[in-house]
Amino acid sequence: MPVLLAPEQAPFLSDLLRSANQVGLDYQLINEPTSRIRGIGSLLSAGPDEVSFLSNPRLKEQVLQCRAAAVILTREVYEALAPGAGFKAVICSQPYLMYALLAQWFDLHRLAQLPAGIHPSAVVDPTARIGPGVSIGPHCVIEAEATIGAGARLGPACIVGQGSSVGNDSLLHARVTLYHGVNVGHRAILHSGVVLGADGFGFAPDPFKGQGAWAKIAQLGGVRIGDDVEIGANTTVDRGALDDTVVGNGVKLDNQIMLAHNVKVGDHTAMAACVGVAGSTVIGQRCTIGGASMLSGHIVLGDDVHVSGGTAITSNVLEPGRYTGVYPFAEHTHWQKNAAVVSQLAHLRRRVRACEKNAPQNEQ
Amino acid sequence: MPVLLAPEQAPFLSDLLRSANQVGLDYQLINEPTSRIRGIGSLLSAGPDEVSFLSNPRLKEQVLQCRAAAVILTREVYEALAPGAGFKAVICSQPYLMYALLAQWFDLHRLAQLPAGIHPSAVVDPTARIGPGVSIGPHCVIEAEATIGAGARLGPACIVGQGSSVGNDSLLHARVTLYHGVNVGHRAILHSGVVLGADGFGFAPDPFKGQGAWAKIAQLGGVRIGDDVEIGANTTVDRGALDDTVVGNGVKLDNQIMLAHNVKVGDHTAMAACVGVAGSTVIGQRCTIGGASMLSGHIVLGDDVHVSGGTAITSNVLEPGRYTGVYPFAEHTHWQKNAAVVSQLAHLRRRVRACEKNAPQNEQ
Amino acid sequence: MPVLLAPEQAPFLSDLLRSANQVGLDYQLINEPTSRIRGIGSLLSAGPDEVSFLSNPRLKEQVLQCRAAAVILTREVYEALAPGAGFKAVICSQPYLMYALLAQWFDLHRLAQLPAGIHPSAVVDPTARIGPGVSIGPHCVIEAEATIGAGARLGPACIVGQGSSVGNDSLLHARVTLYHGVNVGHRAILHSGVVLGADGFGFAPDPFKGQGAWAKIAQLGGVRIGDDVEIGANTTVDRGALDDTVVGNGVKLDNQIMLAHNVKVGDHTAMAACVGVAGSTVIGQRCTIGGASMLSGHIVLGDDVHVSGGTAITSNVLEPGRYTGVYPFAEHTHWQKNAAVVSQLAHLRRRVRACEKNAPQNEQ
Repeated sequence: MPVLLAPEQAPFLSDLLRSANQVGLDYQLINEPTSRIRGIGSLLSAGPDEVSFLSNPRLKEQVLQCRAAAVILTREVYEALAPGAGFKAVICSQPYLMYALLAQWFDLHRLAQLPAGIHPSAVVDPTARIGPGVSIGPHCVIEAEATIGAGARLGPACIVGQGSSVGNDSLLHARVTLYHGVNVGHRAILHSGVVLGADGFGFAPDPFKGQGAWAKIAQLGGVRIGDDVEIGANTTVDRGALDDTVVGNGVKLDNQIMLAHNVKVGDHTAMAACVGVAGSTVIGQRCTIGGASMLSGHIVLGDDVHVSGGTAITSNVLEPGRYTGVYPFAEHTHWQKNAAVVSQLAHLRRRVRACEKNAPQNEQ
Repeated sequence: MPVLLAPEQAPFLSDLLRSANQVGLDYQLINEPTSRIRGIGSLLSAGPDEVSFLSNPRLKEQVLQCRAAAVILTREVYEALAPGAGFKAVICSQPYLMYALLAQWFDLHRLAQLPAGIHPSAVVDPTARIGPGVSIGPHCVIEAEATIGAGARLGPACIVGQGSSVGNDSLLHARVTLYHGVNVGHRAILHSGVVLGADGFGFAPDPFKGQGAWAKIAQLGGVRIGDDVEIGANTTVDRGALDDTVVGNGVKLDNQIMLAHNVKVGDHTAMAACVGVAGSTVIGQRCTIGGASMLSGHIVLGDDVHVSGGTAITSNVLEPGRYTGVYPFAEHTHWQKNAAVVSQLAHLRRRVRACEKNAPQNEQ
Repeated sequence: MPVLLAPEQAPFLSDLLRSANQVGLDYQLINEPTSRIRGIGSLLSAGPDEVSFLSNPRLKEQVLQCRAAAVILTREVYEALAPGAGFKAVICSQPYLMYALLAQWFDLHRLAQLPAGIHPSAVVDPTARIGPGVSIGPHCVIEAEATIGAGARLGPACIVGQGSSVGNDSLLHARVTLYHGVNVGHRAILHSGVVLGADGFGFAPDPFKGQGAWAKIAQLGGVRIGDDVEIGANTTVDRGALDDTVVGNGVKLDNQIMLAHNVKVGDHTAMAACVGVAGSTVIGQRCTIGGASMLSGHIVLGDDVHVSGGTAITSNVLEPGRYTGVYPFAEHTHWQKNAAVVSQLAHLRRRVRACEKNAPQNEQ
């Protein structure tokens, strides 16, 4: 459960809204609660010193049961519910975005409490450039010529390789690994176990080493990550063979994703967990790739392409739209009967053609 | 191969059975071997100072060739084989479970030899609560207000975040990462590269940042892991958005599994490697999820649901049973012919309907 | 982009070819460039102090536009292009392999610059055997009785467990974890986040712990990795239950691959990223396994079997050849129509059979 702020640290709702709503969302506070706001809760779990929100109008009826200090909702919902005089609410045209801003505020408050500075157990090369206000946790390793931008925070055991850079105000959670020649932009959030810049998978047949043997293609390119990128736990982005692997601005990658060498991902594209993208594939802007999808190598996805979870994309997709490839599961014995036919579909089609030929008046 | 105990450390079979069989399995020792038992081997590989077992009756004939000091088998098999007078055996109604108990004994013996105490290179916050008999390896980091339960063992480079807890007698192998607000129960086994409590994947569209831009939903919930849970290498379990992500008692997770935010997994459910479970999905008790399966978000699996490997579960499954969705592979050119039909199945069905209409006496 | 060597460190092309081409590839240098070679670039991106190459004849026309100091190409292409007198080229029967050799030379040059020796923050057990010329990075942990072969390099935060060994001239990038009883051969390249020797996933039903409860099968086997093996970031190879998990010589594994306990992989087999191989499966020599493929447990793949990406191999494949199982994706609404039929294929076949029976002259 969310850790609640100590009452003396907790803000009043009006102050919270003012400091959290940096982007200037419109809102109207109906009846300021007297209690301070110690956290955020869902409609069903929020306590009297938490604020809650309604983003899905179908859950309307939960609002009146909600024990929260106040509920963020749209004017339409507020008027539809027509709650009593004392009802405490934040009327806002975008309750979900307002919730996002408040949640960020509480998370930043927590981060601000964490120890800053460079921990004595960290190993920082004298040639590394460390910006002002940087925090480097225990057992970090910052190699030669690396750059850590102003206000960046590195959790325990992060490794920044030779000549690599981390942009301003970036947050690296524990145990993030950047190889040499990896550049990460500003305001990045990288989660534990992320590996940026491992070698791409490239080999040439090497007859001199014997039948079937491989010669390694050393991977001399780097990795470039734009600004405002978040990368989930244990996700890997390989370095390019000669040119760089490139992740655009505002891209969001979930956990355990694999981007192979020389992949390019356009701005604001989001990928759910366990996606694999093979080498040299180019993905456009504002795409969404569902979890456990797989993209073949050397293909192109245009802008605004949306791939359903579990889909294997094996060729170019240039038209915006939604694409799907997962066939339905079934109870096992039912599946067995259908699966047997899948292996004979070409034969089945031939039989249908024969039926058409044999039909007395063939309308096909 | 299993490392054999030094002869002077190795127990006699009767002593081994007595100390390993804590749960009180019935067994009968036929002819105690004179040699001490230095390890366990398979029927084909076991040497004269190892014990072996038969769990699969179809391998019966291997027993008489086995060189092991003794073989664990059922009375049925023993009588079917009718081995000679000198034959050394442990007759037991559950040979596989007895093998499990003996293997645990040898592994615990190995663990007991490992160095204990807190390594000087570990960084332990003074406000952390460290129970008696705890072992903390080199380069571990235990943050403020964290709790390590009595008898817990942390391998090298483990990180336990602020306010997180590890239960009694838990074993964390090298390089396990717990974020803040993560609670792990008693007798857990967590393998290298496990990440518990990374942020769930949550974003709201943020028009103020430009077309397609995303605002992060800070993830304020935590992770709760029950007792007797094992989690495999490089598996990730994300923290909840507001409420916790929950893994029940006795759950077993293999390697490289991904549990997204607010997933709930019921007691004793087991998942093979490379499974992905999307956000807010609820899985019942005693389920088994085959390797590389994928579960969509916001769905429910009831108790005793068994999912075959590689299956995409995209909707609720409330009835116990086995469910499958992987369609058969084939030699490539054969597959090509069938795959072409898959893309035209709706059209093929229309052609069948036409045939039915055109048939002289339509029996459909 | 590749970091270019400082001009004074950069070799002349003839010297570079001599020292990089250890295997003795035939080649002919046409017009030695006067400038030193500071790196390698693709035909489109190479600058005047880089060398480039043409491996794909279809890109022929790019050669004449290429700004590189020289281009590596075949005699056929050279004569087809018939470039002018001053044209600088390396004529070679295997341009891609020559490129591989040159790229290796530049990468080794970079490695040679890195600090050597044992970093003071590393924790090395006095009983560990450390060969000559070994480099061990910050925060590494080398446990009791471990062996590090001559010339091996360990990046930061690598862990080598009790009694494990790393062969001569192996390269472990940052944060590689070897459990106890793991043996890695000579000239290995292991990338960040690799975990070798975590427990295989083995459990026996344990009625004594309650309905559905599991007893752990302690995994007493080890892991054996041959010579000249490369393993990608965050890939996991589990230890065997009793016998070892075995990876043959020259095997290449990409990122985020999972090899379960007792898997055996034959020499020179290559697997692309995100492949999962379940327990006890045996894979032959010179196989290639496409990305995100899944192999069931206890099956056998023969030599020279090639599996397409995303394919689920659920039974033995003993004949050499290519095998595929992914069904085609489509625009979502088009897919929906076909998917509906997939669930009724057995019924559709019955309808076809009825049509055949009803046809006036049944030719089937």
